[in-house]
Amino acid sequence: MTQNNQDKLTQDVVAAFADAPPRLREIMTSLVKHVHAFARDVDLTQEEWLAGLKFLTKTGQISTERRPEFILLSDTLGLSMMIVTLAHARESSNAQGATEATVEGPFYWAGSPEYPLGADISAGASGEPAYYSGRVLDLQGRPLAGALLDIWSGDGDGKYDVQLAAEPEMKARGRIHTDSEGRYWFWSIRPSYYPIPDDGPVGDMLRATNRNIFRPGHIHMQVSAPGHVMLTTHVFVNGSPYIDEDEHVSRRDSLVVEFPQHPPGKAPDGRVMQVPYYSAAYDFRLAPARA
Amino acid sequence: MTQNNQDKLTQDVVAAFADAPPRLREIMTSLVKHVHAFARDVDLTQEEWLAGLKFLTKTGQISTERRPEFILLSDTLGLSMMIVTLAHARESSNAQGATEATVEGPFYWAGSPEYPLGADISAGASGEPAYYSGRVLDLQGRPLAGALLDIWSGDGDGKYDVQLAAEPEMKARGRIHTDSEGRYWFWSIRPSYYPIPDDGPVGDMLRATNRNIFRPGHIHMQVSAPGHVMLTTHVFVNGSPYIDEDEHVSRRDSLVVEFPQHPPGKAPDGRVMQVPYYSAAYDFRLAPARA
Repeated sequence: MTQNNQDKLTQDVVAAFADAPPRLREIMTSLVKHVHAFARDVDLTQEEWLAGLKFLTKTGQISTERRPEFILLSDTLGLSMMIVTLAHARESSNAQGATEATVEGPFYWAGSPEYPLGADISAGASGEPAYYSGRVLDLQGRPLAGALLDIWSGDGDGKYDVQLAAEPEMKARGRIHTDSEGRYWFWSIRPSYYPIPDDGPVGDMLRATNRNIFRPGHIHMQVSAPGHVMLTTHVFVNGSPYIDEDEHVSRRDSLVVEFPQHPPGKAPDGRVMQVPYYSAAYDFRLAPARA
Repeated sequence: MTQNNQDKLTQDVVAAFADAPPRLREIMTSLVKHVHAFARDVDLTQEEWLAGLKFLTKTGQISTERRPEFILLSDTLGLSMMIVTLAHARESSNAQGATEATVEGPFYWAGSPEYPLGADISAGASGEPAYYSGRVLDLQGRPLAGALLDIWSGDGDGKYDVQLAAEPEMKARGRIHTDSEGRYWFWSIRPSYYPIPDDGPVGDMLRATNRNIFRPGHIHMQVSAPGHVMLTTHVFVNGSPYIDEDEHVSRRDSLVVEFPQHPPGKAPDGRVMQVPYYSAAYDFRLAPARA
């Protein structure tokens, strides 16, 4: 079949979507064009096509609510990060100076407990204690009182609560509000680097392509305040293994934070620690939402 | 995030595949570029992205060996047809005059029974009898003796054997070899138009986009002979409902064949029919394989 016939095939399929609702038509038209162009660009063979369909089938079949393998695939292909950047550009007309966003990842769990400022949200997660503090600010540096931080991380062994049991209990997750001066502080653990869940098709893909399967240590935050764009981001642990080759391609230099270690004794919030602990300080800056 | 940052993101993900084996690197590089370009072209929102991942997850989860939903998706997006055309261009240096190829579809079942010429391959499938005949030729019109026809179709009610029972028996499937003059003839039923399996995500997609879910009546053939490119195609029933709007976007005018009806009596092969029957005549022309 000639080049012309291949062009016509793409046109025919696009035409089949002519009666779709406008937005869906726009999406399917672009999808069909890119899928066809991809197949032509690489001259995809029938064996490769079938291997791809089997890969996608397995990716669906291993998925559960707590192990969303297609999100992991999207993360590893940088699509999740692209969606984050598109959302940020769409939602704010002026994001200059805002904290950089990064991917949500597959381990968010809505409805984590509300804690008072200064609480230990680790809830028994293994690992070495860490004291987190900072402020939530607008782009002019004004404090945002009552801003919500929705926080989650893996533990000191690199495991999330949802990976530890069939019926997991929430650990190292919590929601905290800033005080009248935009300040937050809480305790949790210092998160470890970890391999992504690699016993599925995405793990197979990363190994087949000689990619790294590890993510550097990080703690996730969703930070929101009225009139501002909700920020989904991480704070990365400087010095963590794999800090320079994050498998999610989502590390941003501005999000890498020092975690100095301190001897036992009185911590900044007055708590007396019997063991060494780490601390991390970070101020979040939120962009204004479009009017 | 700016346009430049989005370009850089794509470059970073491509760079993550730098150590993959060459062919896999080529495929993943093109895939990443097209997936990213698609998201940017349509400014894909987080809700749309999540809906897409859920769609893909469901597509995997409904799949079984006999109900490969990703093949159905590939068929409805015209990707299967594109793969067929790419294979044809790759496998033959001179396909001018060859019978047009079309998609295999999701209902091929390897290992169907071998029948002698003239056999009835319907094996009890419901429907009105039809007599199929013709020749297998090369591009110079020379008969190909001993060519293999691997034949399958739905029945007169539009159902394939694999859709009729959890442990199906093969019906309306068979393999036949041409005689010394390249001729073939056999009996089966005249296949009906049918809806694709539409109780899954692909059916939902077709309805959401106001697309037709029906395929016109057709019988599948894989025709092969030594030294020639294997041809995967259909013979379509002219006059069948939906002949002009095949949901698989795979109908080709050159594959649409008359199925005249005949009164009871002696058929061309000498068989005496007690009921009316149809006939269909089609010659297949195979392209030479690349040396």
